[in-house]
Amino acid sequence: MERAQIEATVLEMVKKAKGAARGLSAMPAALKNTILLEVGEALIAQQPYILAENHKDMVTAEQKGMSAAMLDRLRITEKGIRDMVQGLREVAALEDPVGEVSEMRRRPSGIVIGRMRVPLGVILMIYESRPNVTIDSAALCLKTGNAVILRGGSEAIHSNLALAKVLGEVLVKHGVDPAVAQVLGFTDREGIDVLLLQEAYIDLVIPRGGEGLIRAVTEKSRIPVLKHYKGVCHCFVDADADQEMAIPIIINAKVQRPSVCNALEGLLIHRQIAEEFLPKAASALKKEGVRILGCPLSRQICDETIEAAADSDWGTEFLDLVLTVKVVSGIDEAMDYIDQYGSRHTETIITGSYEHSQRFLREVDASAVMVNASTRFNDGGQFGLGAEIGISTTKLHAYGPMGLKELTTQKFIVYGAGEIRA
Amino acid sequence: MERAQIEATVLEMVKKAKGAARGLSAMPAALKNTILLEVGEALIAQQPYILAENHKDMVTAEQKGMSAAMLDRLRITEKGIRDMVQGLREVAALEDPVGEVSEMRRRPSGIVIGRMRVPLGVILMIYESRPNVTIDSAALCLKTGNAVILRGGSEAIHSNLALAKVLGEVLVKHGVDPAVAQVLGFTDREGIDVLLLQEAYIDLVIPRGGEGLIRAVTEKSRIPVLKHYKGVCHCFVDADADQEMAIPIIINAKVQRPSVCNALEGLLIHRQIAEEFLPKAASALKKEGVRILGCPLSRQICDETIEAAADSDWGTEFLDLVLTVKVVSGIDEAMDYIDQYGSRHTETIITGSYEHSQRFLREVDASAVMVNASTRFNDGGQFGLGAEIGISTTKLHAYGPMGLKELTTQKFIVYGAGEIRA
Repeated sequence: MERAQIEATVLEMVKKAKGAARGLSAMPAALKNTILLEVGEALIAQQPYILAENHKDMVTAEQKGMSAAMLDRLRITEKGIRDMVQGLREVAALEDPVGEVSEMRRRPSGIVIGRMRVPLGVILMIYESRPNVTIDSAALCLKTGNAVILRGGSEAIHSNLALAKVLGEVLVKHGVDPAVAQVLGFTDREGIDVLLLQEAYIDLVIPRGGEGLIRAVTEKSRIPVLKHYKGVCHCFVDADADQEMAIPIIINAKVQRPSVCNALEGLLIHRQIAEEFLPKAASALKKEGVRILGCPLSRQICDETIEAAADSDWGTEFLDLVLTVKVVSGIDEAMDYIDQYGSRHTETIITGSYEHSQRFLREVDASAVMVNASTRFNDGGQFGLGAEIGISTTKLHAYGPMGLKELTTQKFIVYGAGEIRA
Repeated sequence: MERAQIEATVLEMVKKAKGAARGLSAMPAALKNTILLEVGEALIAQQPYILAENHKDMVTAEQKGMSAAMLDRLRITEKGIRDMVQGLREVAALEDPVGEVSEMRRRPSGIVIGRMRVPLGVILMIYESRPNVTIDSAALCLKTGNAVILRGGSEAIHSNLALAKVLGEVLVKHGVDPAVAQVLGFTDREGIDVLLLQEAYIDLVIPRGGEGLIRAVTEKSRIPVLKHYKGVCHCFVDADADQEMAIPIIINAKVQRPSVCNALEGLLIHRQIAEEFLPKAASALKKEGVRILGCPLSRQICDETIEAAADSDWGTEFLDLVLTVKVVSGIDEAMDYIDQYGSRHTETIITGSYEHSQRFLREVDASAVMVNASTRFNDGGQFGLGAEIGISTTKLHAYGPMGLKELTTQKFIVYGAGEIRA
């Protein structure tokens, strides 16, 4: 498409979204929940159509030589549809945050003031391959009264449009403007560029995908962006750690799902216990197929199982069965290291020291700071937020997993009886 | 200064600020409060020095032909210093939000999770003329554990550096790194441009000043910006409003301090009462010297006191004794008008209708929505936030007056006993 046509299409889309958002913001929770459940029923009823449209994307992707891992992310299976339906049911079951009034109090002037939770307005989701993000994100935005514009990967365009069609039919059946959830209907990359300039119509951008996508979105956007670039998570094993507890935590954090952002990338070990603990840890990691890149001191202790780390390895997000190991002089060096190489995502300490647990919790700057627990717990579901639209390592508005509350804001409301300011 | 030198100076400054922020984030409230009170004492003790430095700025500004209003904002008087000292005492008396832990709960996995309130890190304040902003902002940032970089107007450079010197001496006396509050020591405009690119070191920008300054900052910044461009506030007088209540509210909102962002700029009147109410309102406004620009219908009713509004008058922030008046068909047209011409700052309805009060509170999108009260109440002090560092009409992070809480964020903390993720 030509630039002018892209601009015209995007502008029409964002204007419709903004118009639809106003009605959506006042929609009763009961209707929102009914729609969410009926979308689930429609996904099951229209499964053959969805799978056929997904098949078109799969054929194109295979022709283009997409990797097996990417194809796997793109594929919609019957189980995938069941998972989407389950997700819709879970979102329907959550409490509606919109309209919640808190902190009401009377001021000396006589006015009664409080805060009312309200939707943000229009949210732009930019994401890669997985088509389930289309339904998951639309559900969370609908529940929180936000209109959403969905721009998935170009490789998933047929799948995403099919899912949006099923969703749109349910909306129309209930007399709801289908512009509350729109999938961008073309795949030119300029579509993203133009969307990111629409600060007058879009209130928030949430990119989900690799660091490259997220950096590109952040640099181009005139709209606030909530994101994390990457997760470089560390575990510090303190001098008086329970070593029997430490090893399963390290293995779980590194091995259970190495490709995700809350997986462990760096292990820090207190010098006092390194000679005793490191061989046990290295052996357990080796048994799980983990490649270990260590500092010189760690290699003096375990020269056979630990390779020499290059300078560029420290702070790297491997997303694979690779782990850096560094021996440190104590909690201060560990926290300095985390400050330098961490990504503000998730940091954990294994310790028996009350004082160190409190210092670590207070002083480490990360969206989730843990004591004696696996970094893998940093997740909306595990934290009890109900559902998650992403994780933020920016500190403004949201820090950590983002659930329903993070998709809303609070305005001040004032009940007066004719008060004027003195 | 040359660009390279500016870049080097700014980079050194932001690095020092980030380094100082970590220590500050763990500073006990008692020490922060002692410092705030002692800065107040030092301002009084060093009043002759501060007034002499301010005099240098005044002389230069007079030579440059600065307007009387601007000179007035630039001048530091003995009363001005007393007001700063009073502000410091008030901030010291507020509760320290840092370290507050909330929402602790046990999850099915066994981990105990909650949120801990923490500073944002490094805040950049960009502001115009009034030197008191230097002390007020430094106090709020210190109290909330944030390092701050202060870039005031070039016309106030001697005053701002003098105030920072007094502050810095108190910090050093208590062994605190004076880099927690730094005034940019040169006035080249490029200094702002370079600061706004330091996303790796600065967490938040708060610009305070005219719409031009704020738009320029927003367009250039790679760092999140909390701001309001302007305040175009409206009052809708509903059909069954208590008219005796409406007039003092309108007069207070328009006349008490017309140059501020929560002053009234537009009056909307229900058609049913326009013939009765408008002449009374217009007469009261005229008595206060307010120029009224109205729609054709309003001029049919009061053709002598109301001038014809031009299209460009609707939605204008006059910051003066000027008010637009429009007769509307009811609450829906009023809310549509506010949606189109409002600035999401403050909107008020004067009504006796329960239903309309609730609809207005729920449906109007503004940082403060009021019933039967003057828009002038939208202010941190009046709302009971204790002190205010600005008002945000962006919806992310803060919406409305920003107090201590809005200068902090929350991280997740997890207490485990060896839990791993299943």
